Amino acid sequence: MTSAFSDGFCDSSVRATIDLIGGKWSMAILWQLLQEECRYAELQRRVGGISQKVLSAELRTLVGAGLVEREVVPTVPPQVTYRITEEGRSLEDVFAALHRWGLQHGG
Amino acid sequence: MTSAFSDGFCDSSVRATIDLIGGKWSMAILWQLLQEECRYAELQRRVGGISQKVLSAELRTLVGAGLVEREVVPTVPPQVTYRITEEGRSLEDVFAALHRWGLQHGG
Repeated sequence: MTSAFSDGFCDSSVRATIDLIGGKWSMAILWQLLQEECRYAELQRRVGGISQKVLSAELRTLVGAGLVEREVVPTVPPQVTYRITEEGRSLEDVFAALHRWGLQHGG
Repeated sequence: MTSAFSDGFCDSSVRATIDLIGGKWSMAILWQLLQEECRYAELQRRVGGISQKVLSAELRTLVGAGLVEREVVPTVPPQVTYRITEEGRSLEDVFAALHRWGLQHGG
């Protein structure tokens, strides 16, 4: 692990990851979807404090990155469900580390 | 690990952590300072693309949270150095997980 912090050569990989998932909203969305799939309105409620505009934009980015998938059931009105992909599920280690840190340091 | 994702009860701990260190800039700053202490101008250069106003605000938050410390050497002009605290160093696991994910999925 130490090498990740003593060498700069891997820096771009971490920065790209931070750019992709490091935003407060994208992390909160991924965290919710890692727990269970969710319909749009429920996701907005669970994330909390996020506007529809920002939530839609964040979801587009996460879907585009292959971390989240969007399923539309053509009922009236249509039901839109978001769920984590296998690729997104691979972020569990990151969130598990966040979770452990939060428990230890949240006070 | 599974319990972190199947139970909602730990949710507030993760959300508090995301609120504290989530955010593209704060994560990028922490990542740089985990590697080595850094003077202000050099930190701005390494983080890249961040304004002085935003960098200063992010650093104030991180110092206030006890994750980063600020040392002023009273030379002329003063030298201001930022370094990770022991508390901040405890985030290494989170960044190590990000780093591994980035290597595996950065393509």
